[in-house]
Amino acid sequence: MPEFSPGLEGVVAAETAVSEVDGANGRLIYRGGYLIEDLAPVAGFEETAYLLWHGKLPNKTELDSLRHQMAAARRLKDGARGSLSVLDPAIDPMDTLRTVVSAQGAAKALTQPTLDEAIALTAVFPTVVAAAHRRAKGMDLLEPREDLGHAANLLWMMEGKEASHQRVHWLETYLVLLADHGLNASTFTARVIASTGSDLTSCIVGAIGALKGPAHGGATFAARTMLDKIGSIENVETWLEKAHAEHRRFAGFGHRVYRTYDPRAKILRELAQTAAPDLYRLAAHTEEVALKILHEAHPERPNATNVDFWASVVLTGVGIPKELFTCVFATSRVAGWTAHVLESLADLRIIRPASVWKGPQPGVKPLPLANR
Amino acid sequence: MPEFSPGLEGVVAAETAVSEVDGANGRLIYRGGYLIEDLAPVAGFEETAYLLWHGKLPNKTELDSLRHQMAAARRLKDGARGSLSVLDPAIDPMDTLRTVVSAQGAAKALTQPTLDEAIALTAVFPTVVAAAHRRAKGMDLLEPREDLGHAANLLWMMEGKEASHQRVHWLETYLVLLADHGLNASTFTARVIASTGSDLTSCIVGAIGALKGPAHGGATFAARTMLDKIGSIENVETWLEKAHAEHRRFAGFGHRVYRTYDPRAKILRELAQTAAPDLYRLAAHTEEVALKILHEAHPERPNATNVDFWASVVLTGVGIPKELFTCVFATSRVAGWTAHVLESLADLRIIRPASVWKGPQPGVKPLPLANR
Repeated sequence: MPEFSPGLEGVVAAETAVSEVDGANGRLIYRGGYLIEDLAPVAGFEETAYLLWHGKLPNKTELDSLRHQMAAARRLKDGARGSLSVLDPAIDPMDTLRTVVSAQGAAKALTQPTLDEAIALTAVFPTVVAAAHRRAKGMDLLEPREDLGHAANLLWMMEGKEASHQRVHWLETYLVLLADHGLNASTFTARVIASTGSDLTSCIVGAIGALKGPAHGGATFAARTMLDKIGSIENVETWLEKAHAEHRRFAGFGHRVYRTYDPRAKILRELAQTAAPDLYRLAAHTEEVALKILHEAHPERPNATNVDFWASVVLTGVGIPKELFTCVFATSRVAGWTAHVLESLADLRIIRPASVWKGPQPGVKPLPLANR
Repeated sequence: MPEFSPGLEGVVAAETAVSEVDGANGRLIYRGGYLIEDLAPVAGFEETAYLLWHGKLPNKTELDSLRHQMAAARRLKDGARGSLSVLDPAIDPMDTLRTVVSAQGAAKALTQPTLDEAIALTAVFPTVVAAAHRRAKGMDLLEPREDLGHAANLLWMMEGKEASHQRVHWLETYLVLLADHGLNASTFTARVIASTGSDLTSCIVGAIGALKGPAHGGATFAARTMLDKIGSIENVETWLEKAHAEHRRFAGFGHRVYRTYDPRAKILRELAQTAAPDLYRLAAHTEEVALKILHEAHPERPNATNVDFWASVVLTGVGIPKELFTCVFATSRVAGWTAHVLESLADLRIIRPASVWKGPQPGVKPLPLANR
């Protein structure tokens, strides 16, 4: 029996051409061989989704066609609309997303995942996220706008007015940066579910549940919450030193794979300067002090700032309330989830690992049964 | 980089004391060290669930208390009841289960999975499964009966009359046999989701999606469908030889882990003789011929009958329509899913495997962007 590697760290669970996290060199490569820092400044979300799904960037006709198809798929079906209307508006918006996406994809017969389904599921996320937001605030829901892109339509449906080009650009950059990231836990969840021959919605609903965890997609919320608690630049040293002394982890630092500065964090840090100048200053000082404390405590560890830390600042600048951070993360990552599921269909083999038995061996003891 | 093992075959992904599949020796050991063949004839479903959750069999007081707690948790909350009422009655009942369980577990704040949640989620499965069944048939829904056990209440809620002791016993035995099975794909899905710190409902909803796949829980339906297609004992040889010549897999044969006869299949085969005598005869002859064909084609492979084959016959004898087989499987396995999630909390580490990059390395090629 091979050795147990907790968290499957370093264990290869798939071959993929969707994205590659080259942690040692701080590189994130998207499908086709594009470095994230080359792609993010110039590609929109739909282009990136096309790239992840097709393996090449679209020409103008292909991109227009995808935009049209996505815009036309934003409306909820009856079952999903009905489910949304009966859920308690006060529940975690990720639970709303999990339930309504499940209802949206419910079907009479199990079918193999298709690209059209991937496009339709990705397209509907902003509708659900915006609805969860407006219901929580007691506001009427808005219909999607077919003339707007994925990012702009999300802000429109949340706010009922067109967002500035700048805000749309910041959000779009975030959505491009977060769209895929190797075999992260939610993507891996989607691939495990796909490996049984299940349908695409089941894969995506499972991935939503995994992303929700604070060690995964929930980390952006945690980073912003930490910044809120620190509150002011004067308070940074005191707060972090106290947290460190109490063995509390700093939200937004460290990553399983990166051994150097996360390239996405670097891009978001740049954006944050204009997107949220006040929060940027607090965050930048927090980063400086946190890295110093972490380095002094563990000079051997690569404790670089992760993407969640700077994402929390940029999303704040976009005007996304922190309760929605994980949902907006999902609105991006669903492109990667679906791309991975579609890729995995080419060589489907059920993912069924082994385990090490820690219980007693069967003996000859009698069964102490209560009721017979 | 370690070698890629497709499907994570033989890769240890967890240490567990919930159950052990000793494939080489054809043994299934449940928590506490009980062989399935010792437990199944004497333990009921609630006792088995208690064992998986607590690590010991309950005494009379403990069992009564669990039964009471489960019976009291069978009703749907408003959001779940509402979601159920708006879903198309014609959708796959597994999609109904996935959506309504998601709604049932929706909460305002993310909390760490608890035993009470495990009990409540397990308890509600028969309610949803029976409702999906009755809605598909255009029948009014029935309220759960608190005086009945998990198995008997499921049949009551499906049929609106008390099932015979025999039918309850067959179903109960099935539920005990299927309640856990090492790191199968749905249980592994639940553990991956749990590893991010997510909530119990997210884990279980993901597991439902994985179980749905025809290579996993959907296999019982496939086995029964194959028997339906074969139709009669006279047709067995012709049908199987044609299927084999056309390289179609026989449903209900082979397993990733067992290298000998699945002990659960053995118990179910016995039960099937009384539970469904006619279908048993067809199935027994089908098994004989299928094993002969498979052995001749691949004498090196262990092509034993798996649990799905005989489960499909027993569930038929219980009176479960085949469209509900996967849902009834889920009604059992949810005990194991929740037990694994609770066990994993003791040493939570995000499950985030590595991947091998099959795409091109970043080059100096220009980005062929359509719209800028």
